[in-house]
Amino acid sequence: MFQKIALFGVGLIGGSFALALKRAGVVGQIVGVGRTAAALQRAHELGIIDVIAPSVEHAVRDADLILIAAPVAQTGTILRTIKPFLQTGTVVTDAGSTKSDVVAAARDALGSLVGQFVPGHPIAGRESNGPDAAIGDLYVGKKVVLTALPENTASDIERVAAAWRACGAVIHQLSPAAHDRVFAAVSHLPHLLSYALVDDIAGKPDAALLFHFAASGFRDFTRIAGSSPEMWRDISLANQSALLAELDSYLLKLTTMRDMLARADGVALETIYTNAQQARHNWIRTIEATEQQTRQGGD
Amino acid sequence: MFQKIALFGVGLIGGSFALALKRAGVVGQIVGVGRTAAALQRAHELGIIDVIAPSVEHAVRDADLILIAAPVAQTGTILRTIKPFLQTGTVVTDAGSTKSDVVAAARDALGSLVGQFVPGHPIAGRESNGPDAAIGDLYVGKKVVLTALPENTASDIERVAAAWRACGAVIHQLSPAAHDRVFAAVSHLPHLLSYALVDDIAGKPDAALLFHFAASGFRDFTRIAGSSPEMWRDISLANQSALLAELDSYLLKLTTMRDMLARADGVALETIYTNAQQARHNWIRTIEATEQQTRQGGD
Repeated sequence: MFQKIALFGVGLIGGSFALALKRAGVVGQIVGVGRTAAALQRAHELGIIDVIAPSVEHAVRDADLILIAAPVAQTGTILRTIKPFLQTGTVVTDAGSTKSDVVAAARDALGSLVGQFVPGHPIAGRESNGPDAAIGDLYVGKKVVLTALPENTASDIERVAAAWRACGAVIHQLSPAAHDRVFAAVSHLPHLLSYALVDDIAGKPDAALLFHFAASGFRDFTRIAGSSPEMWRDISLANQSALLAELDSYLLKLTTMRDMLARADGVALETIYTNAQQARHNWIRTIEATEQQTRQGGD
Repeated sequence: MFQKIALFGVGLIGGSFALALKRAGVVGQIVGVGRTAAALQRAHELGIIDVIAPSVEHAVRDADLILIAAPVAQTGTILRTIKPFLQTGTVVTDAGSTKSDVVAAARDALGSLVGQFVPGHPIAGRESNGPDAAIGDLYVGKKVVLTALPENTASDIERVAAAWRACGAVIHQLSPAAHDRVFAAVSHLPHLLSYALVDDIAGKPDAALLFHFAASGFRDFTRIAGSSPEMWRDISLANQSALLAELDSYLLKLTTMRDMLARADGVALETIYTNAQQARHNWIRTIEATEQQTRQGGD
């Protein structure tokens, strides 16, 4: 049970966290801090937050838990505004898509208090943003990765984990570096590749003709190119080295396949296509089995 | 009205064509030819075909229209088996995903009769294949591209167009070369890129960890990597030169973005991401407006 939770950011991620905790009946009061008065007002109308904090001090004081659900590049700045009011016993976590940079920013901002910060990353989202996009079941059956610091206490980690579990999420732990490498490969790189394809086509003289005949395969492949450019610029830069490594690996693969195509080596291409199809098939089967298990109450 | 239609291939594409024409009440008899007795038997049970052809001669004789809905690499061979029985007045069409190679194969197989062949490509599909995947509304509101030959008569082109329109499709015309360039960009390249990503990840030592954290963005981006490897090997080779040109253009774009990332040029990356997001947004809006129009009876 949480007496008081402070939300820095009341949009899709923070708002859905709040709605889920309220639905689970595990929170007394939720206090909101945000960049715009309009978003805070809307979050209040929607029942996401109970109180619009008149000051950071008011939001932080006596909070059991503080969630920072703002663009990842702002994490350091927000932690700096929190620090003067941070009491012993309050745990701070975040929802950023990259973790090594967040940990560095947290060490810089919080100094000796960094042990009170438990970094996290909920693997969930929707195409829309803002308080109106928030839904109480966004995290049901979804993964939350905690990248705990050596300075964190087991009880603080557990407090963050318990909040996410109350939202229906399943907790995993990785080091910040492992987290960033994993998500560079399976999330950040695909976003960059999808943006690249749409931009490449849009820049051709006959782009209108090309788009005219694009169909459902293109629609799925490019869905993530509909994501926020600012957010993905920040993620790309925040996870620069891991993303570069994955991009270089991919460029090598693609260059190899270009050579296979140029020499009309159908056997080699089919080997890659078959391997990919099989791997994806196995992955989907595992996911579906896990979803089945989650619905049945396991994890 | 078609008295007799012969189908070479009774799977998803041919079967859905047959079901749609029957539903529209524009066909007397549908005769099926296929690679396996089991598929033909199943198509007969499902009401896709009325008759399992005892021979190619029987299937072709007195047909108004013949649709070849088989893997694109087999088009030439099938046309060669049809030619000895092809009567004046019968129109042959196909459903292949590439057109320049099909036209070359048709010229080679049919010789002076090539004017009776009107190449086509319905832009529709599903994840499953075979007669059981066939549905009567697969083509409703979808595009069918005809790449007519100089030898085709207007009335033969119109006969093929009328059949597809009876299935609910909207007819477009392109040259075979323009068709292949368009689909290299918006379909064949995305398939290759999607296969490449899954194969690249599957080949890493910690592939299991990476797949474990892959989520919905990865799922959409890689959906087309679940497609048939044999079919996409054939398409890649059949459309080799156009696909190579699109792949080289993409590799150049990706290398440029790699340099932006390496020098942490957030402004340049954001410009590309923004351009892509905007172009995709405009594309989706156009698609939705067209779908709306199609539902209202326009085209």
